[in-house]
Amino acid sequence: MSDDALIKTITNVPGFSASGIACGLKQSGNKDLALIVADRPCAGAAMFTTNVFSAAPVQYDRALLARTRGQGLRGVIINAGNANAVTGDQGLRDAEQMARRVETTLNLPADSVFVMSTGVIGQPLPMARVQDGIAQAAHSLSIAGGRAAAEAIMTTDTVPKIEFVIVEIDGRPIHIGGMAKGSGMIHPNMATMLAVIATDAPLLPVDLNAVLRRSVKVSFNRISVDGDTSTNDTVVALANGAAGGKPLSGGALDTFAEACTRVCVSLAKQVARDGEGATKLVEIQITGAASEAEAAQAAATIATSPLSKTAIFGNDPNWGRFLAAVGRSGVQVDPARANLWLATPQTRVQLVAEGRPLPFDAAALSESLRATAAVVIEVSLGMGDATATYWTCDFSYKYVEINAEYHT
Amino acid sequence: MSDDALIKTITNVPGFSASGIACGLKQSGNKDLALIVADRPCAGAAMFTTNVFSAAPVQYDRALLARTRGQGLRGVIINAGNANAVTGDQGLRDAEQMARRVETTLNLPADSVFVMSTGVIGQPLPMARVQDGIAQAAHSLSIAGGRAAAEAIMTTDTVPKIEFVIVEIDGRPIHIGGMAKGSGMIHPNMATMLAVIATDAPLLPVDLNAVLRRSVKVSFNRISVDGDTSTNDTVVALANGAAGGKPLSGGALDTFAEACTRVCVSLAKQVARDGEGATKLVEIQITGAASEAEAAQAAATIATSPLSKTAIFGNDPNWGRFLAAVGRSGVQVDPARANLWLATPQTRVQLVAEGRPLPFDAAALSESLRATAAVVIEVSLGMGDATATYWTCDFSYKYVEINAEYHT
Repeated sequence: MSDDALIKTITNVPGFSASGIACGLKQSGNKDLALIVADRPCAGAAMFTTNVFSAAPVQYDRALLARTRGQGLRGVIINAGNANAVTGDQGLRDAEQMARRVETTLNLPADSVFVMSTGVIGQPLPMARVQDGIAQAAHSLSIAGGRAAAEAIMTTDTVPKIEFVIVEIDGRPIHIGGMAKGSGMIHPNMATMLAVIATDAPLLPVDLNAVLRRSVKVSFNRISVDGDTSTNDTVVALANGAAGGKPLSGGALDTFAEACTRVCVSLAKQVARDGEGATKLVEIQITGAASEAEAAQAAATIATSPLSKTAIFGNDPNWGRFLAAVGRSGVQVDPARANLWLATPQTRVQLVAEGRPLPFDAAALSESLRATAAVVIEVSLGMGDATATYWTCDFSYKYVEINAEYHT
Repeated sequence: MSDDALIKTITNVPGFSASGIACGLKQSGNKDLALIVADRPCAGAAMFTTNVFSAAPVQYDRALLARTRGQGLRGVIINAGNANAVTGDQGLRDAEQMARRVETTLNLPADSVFVMSTGVIGQPLPMARVQDGIAQAAHSLSIAGGRAAAEAIMTTDTVPKIEFVIVEIDGRPIHIGGMAKGSGMIHPNMATMLAVIATDAPLLPVDLNAVLRRSVKVSFNRISVDGDTSTNDTVVALANGAAGGKPLSGGALDTFAEACTRVCVSLAKQVARDGEGATKLVEIQITGAASEAEAAQAAATIATSPLSKTAIFGNDPNWGRFLAAVGRSGVQVDPARANLWLATPQTRVQLVAEGRPLPFDAAALSESLRATAAVVIEVSLGMGDATATYWTCDFSYKYVEINAEYHT
């Protein structure tokens, strides 16, 4: 990403403008408020954290989707630096107030704006700053504002996460842009994952919802930095239909879904690669599983195993830890038919064949691991045909530092 | 434990002798082979890892228990430095050979000796060294050998784990001794947990088995260092009946079970406190759960949350992380009725009341955390009357170092 001018963002999708400004929620003074707005009513869909202690904006958005049935949505307001979680009734009023302020400032209809928050838990939002910030963000909206918006939602992220694709459907170019933030906060409480997907495709809300679920299943739900599910995790999708034409259906909808999945997978991998303290992106490929759910479960168990993640940080081809994680994952495995490979962009080495260790040059493989920032762990379970891919990062001193040294 | 002479070990149980010697399995040259032998046939019981890739000694012991129905057992041979896991048919032959060698050397009947191993995965046992070691260990058996045996099974453990209690049952003193090893290895692959419980109580195998299950449920199954279940985890209990009298039953059996649980809980806490890189023992108390299983599940989720464990390492009263872990644990919680306390031996502070954050002196509480090596996290879920207690340790730089810097 050497040339910023070439990076396309969410505002390269026709009909979307955005801004990212600082309103004083982050102690650093960095941008902390992002606004994304469509020039016309959108189909909207969203997926939320399964955490019982869901944050006020999550509760607000859930109710908003139920009220609107995913119709007539116009935008998203996102703050970093304060999660507005475990904040009681005041928190719910504050989340609603954020939406109302955007709507009135921009002359949008009521019930047209999603709200997202990330940051410290259990503290009331400083609403005066947020209100001033919203006025400023509304004033700053532009079709060049996508990058500023992506930057404004960063917390301990070291880079903004941005993706953009164009796919031809029914002879028309369809644009899909996305942005996300990953794990950790300047003032950390947990690893909130937020993402926004925008497209000019014409879509019925019900279809956008189905596509989003299909895409999230194999992207944002297939990454882990530390296994901690936040109170605030949210993915929102907006489709403004600016590309024209009838709502996509059939094969056209499938083509769109594939492109949307590509955007989500790219953002998810960016989040995993930039996990707190990460030095490597780790891709886990499970094959030969009895079902896709079991494949994903086996992969997730490796991805959340501190022993496996510290081994990768140490450039140690310690396959026993990966296999042991699979063994405790609760999925069906035939130990006598299990295979395991470790791969880097330069090499792919089989370490276990039919349940037995193979001799290998540990020093050479460790050197290959040391030389790369992308490691693939492949395990075949010997049970069936199902597969799943999962992404995580390694577990470093820096992760402990980030999460132990900052204080509430 | 300033006076070693006062520490009672497994060989303070009448009728048990033990030894711990070095046979060259640990590169450090430290003791790596432990032998525990009873002077008469014992009732035996054991519990094993649920990992699909169970090690050869686990498979051997399972079959031994099935063949003997827990009768006529005489001892345990334990090596550190090599897990004899993922070693195929040769591994099974080697595990059997270890038992046979003990049996023939000591003129014990066949099928009377358990086998345990801990260490690196996927490498054949150097059987010549093991055979010589067994001869040496048999020669060294003594009623003062309990401490040497406990030391011989240590890996990255910094202290041996030992417990001993005397309980009066039916007017007779009953002795229960235990030893355990915790997480990590000199040449690390995973966090194997091994334990041996010895008693002179007269017990039927079926009752010993039931007591062991009851004790392990609330002790070894309630600790976590990093959530990684080893291929080798094993707890063995031997009851030689040297105290005399008829097999315990009824209230006498309950009294014995309570004492056995006390020994197991003590050993489990010692394992958690000495987890890799640990600076603090963390006790998690869940109350108000809908069921004991849900209470344990909520506790386990906090105990395996890297964000929670790094917060404790950082002396950070970051209650949002603990509550969020409960929220994603899958157990029933009433967010509006949840309470949370943080306690040290000196102080106990409520941080959340009925789902709302309470004001507290964060600097003072952080100072209390800094000053203690024992932290209690209490969460009430507002659902029912069930409770569970769970132990873990904090997550430090040292954990990453131990598991990243050593190589296979």
